[in-house]
Amino acid sequence: MRMDTISGESIGIVETQCFTFGRNPWEIMELESGQRLGPVTLAYETYGQLNSNKSNAILIEHTLTSDAHAAGVHKGDKHSGWWDAMIGPGKAFDTRIYFVICSNVIGGCKGSTGPSSINPKTEKPYGLDFPMITVADWVKAQKRLIDHLGIKRLLSVAGGSMGGMQALQWVASYPEMVMSTIPIASAWKQSPQQIAFTEVGRQAIMKDPNWNNGNYYDGPRPEKGLSVARMIGHITYMSETSMEEKFARKLKGQDYSFSFDTDFEVEGYLNYNGDAFVKRFDANSYLYISRALNYFDVSGEKLIPQGQTIDTRFLVISFLSDWLYPSWQSREITQFLMSRQQDTTYCEIKSTYGHDAFLLEFEEETRLIKHFLVKVTNDN
Amino acid sequence: MRMDTISGESIGIVETQCFTFGRNPWEIMELESGQRLGPVTLAYETYGQLNSNKSNAILIEHTLTSDAHAAGVHKGDKHSGWWDAMIGPGKAFDTRIYFVICSNVIGGCKGSTGPSSINPKTEKPYGLDFPMITVADWVKAQKRLIDHLGIKRLLSVAGGSMGGMQALQWVASYPEMVMSTIPIASAWKQSPQQIAFTEVGRQAIMKDPNWNNGNYYDGPRPEKGLSVARMIGHITYMSETSMEEKFARKLKGQDYSFSFDTDFEVEGYLNYNGDAFVKRFDANSYLYISRALNYFDVSGEKLIPQGQTIDTRFLVISFLSDWLYPSWQSREITQFLMSRQQDTTYCEIKSTYGHDAFLLEFEEETRLIKHFLVKVTNDN
Repeated sequence: MRMDTISGESIGIVETQCFTFGRNPWEIMELESGQRLGPVTLAYETYGQLNSNKSNAILIEHTLTSDAHAAGVHKGDKHSGWWDAMIGPGKAFDTRIYFVICSNVIGGCKGSTGPSSINPKTEKPYGLDFPMITVADWVKAQKRLIDHLGIKRLLSVAGGSMGGMQALQWVASYPEMVMSTIPIASAWKQSPQQIAFTEVGRQAIMKDPNWNNGNYYDGPRPEKGLSVARMIGHITYMSETSMEEKFARKLKGQDYSFSFDTDFEVEGYLNYNGDAFVKRFDANSYLYISRALNYFDVSGEKLIPQGQTIDTRFLVISFLSDWLYPSWQSREITQFLMSRQQDTTYCEIKSTYGHDAFLLEFEEETRLIKHFLVKVTNDN
Repeated sequence: MRMDTISGESIGIVETQCFTFGRNPWEIMELESGQRLGPVTLAYETYGQLNSNKSNAILIEHTLTSDAHAAGVHKGDKHSGWWDAMIGPGKAFDTRIYFVICSNVIGGCKGSTGPSSINPKTEKPYGLDFPMITVADWVKAQKRLIDHLGIKRLLSVAGGSMGGMQALQWVASYPEMVMSTIPIASAWKQSPQQIAFTEVGRQAIMKDPNWNNGNYYDGPRPEKGLSVARMIGHITYMSETSMEEKFARKLKGQDYSFSFDTDFEVEGYLNYNGDAFVKRFDANSYLYISRALNYFDVSGEKLIPQGQTIDTRFLVISFLSDWLYPSWQSREITQFLMSRQQDTTYCEIKSTYGHDAFLLEFEEETRLIKHFLVKVTNDN
């Protein structure tokens, strides 16, 4: 939205790359659960150029159902990456200045190793044999990619929602590698309400007979359950106000059908998005990724241990109408950081878009982030 | 909660009664959809005594998944009615003074005619052959019951949530019969967010293969879908704060299971309630009743036509932490009533219980309602 006021153009054609590690037994990844995973492939994209002293790298973290394709377009495709408004020449993450990396999480289904990948032991898709992964595991895998790219320190790690959690996890896991972090519309642990919404989504999937305990890759997929899970998600991504503005009580037809067909536009929106989602996402990945979010907790001392100070700047952003990741969760992080004398800026952006705001309010976000990144660059 | 501060005792043993009309063709009910329904049975309970001039009757309206059993206990059962804290000797609806009636809605599965009832034409359960019913139809059926009881005017019509909608519909349909009304935690039309939550619940049911287009009464029932619908409901009935107070991130066991089993107490709560619900509720009834709520709209002139004044007093109550039926919806009704010079009292009760508050904050509700009913009685 409001693209007219943002200077900046598309980065153009981009390509997803792959990085694989753990082919050798000694490289296999130890997971937080105690299980082991290898080989591990990470799908990732990069935009802009890494400078000679490798000091201009920014890692962008994605959301539950998103992927490594954050900006630009793939050859032969018209659709831009999911944060194209924020990444490119002249944009918030200015690719004339910064080297921007976006990596898909493990457990996903967008090129990185996940439950739909082939298990080398069985030569069949993992299904539920895929080990449980956590946000710390995602970041651990990403660190291998950053090491592989020869980057010693990231200028910034940024992301919205689940992306913000990964940004905070980077600070908890590898503070010395993170010059700054920008968690947006996020939290340092999930609240019971957030856990509850994901659990209902998981139950919708697992109660679908086609789910078949995760073994559905050679048969019909649990599309109905996954679609319901996505519909629940969509309600939580919008605000009451944005739903009112977009749909109110508008009908698809002239009058009530007096049936269970789609009468209201809001119903059409949810059903359309539920149905579209199942074509592009794997139900088991939904289970694994949402579970990782439930387990996530870097609150308090887990973010920065008692008595330690870290050399990381924070820009914390939340949105007024976001009720899924409400502002109090961002303020909770900020208050802790202030109490620990960490260099922290917090901004609550006035928006009616709800949780979706971090994907839509990029004019405000750009202003904040551009300025913040200049400050981080100059002070280092 | 806080029972200690409320004087009042249980009303004791009560019994559900049945009233049937529409056995004769000329009595058959014309529904808002244009379809016809008959015969129609209403399950209802009464508490207290109707006085000689039949001026002390109060109609209590129930919620989506509730029934006519609002107070007292059934013989051989330990469980009190759903609003027992509010109805009884010395309570808000004081059965020493008032004659209290609670009627189950048509379309339900608690004794009134609904989709699980036998269709006289086929001698099988109606299923989806049951006609679509609306809130106006519920009230139209209830009016037959009130007529049958010989009551010309109701001292009050009161209810929370869906019950509040019926209370408002009474005003819209039969203003001359309603001396006062008490809509609690309610709205005069559903918002798109409210429609959205019910639609996801319906999709969960209708996507369950056992639903079988509503024909499941001689086979397995769509329990999985109905359970998911109920879990969604439960999230919306609590507030973020009450979930935090009740569950926080407490685990069922010692540590994370690193599986999709129930790890968090909030998950256990939702699953328990989802599973318990399917034993006591019919999936088709869930569809029909929730659809009636979507269609409900008595906003503005539909409540009181332009140029008319009605002889009905209003007590509108909402709860601070209720995000499913937020206070702005009650204020919207109140502002309209004030602009029409209708005698109206509005109170927002401070509570952390969310939408469930109307079932729990009965100390505050009692104070407000007792006083209001005395005023209504004295002024008539």
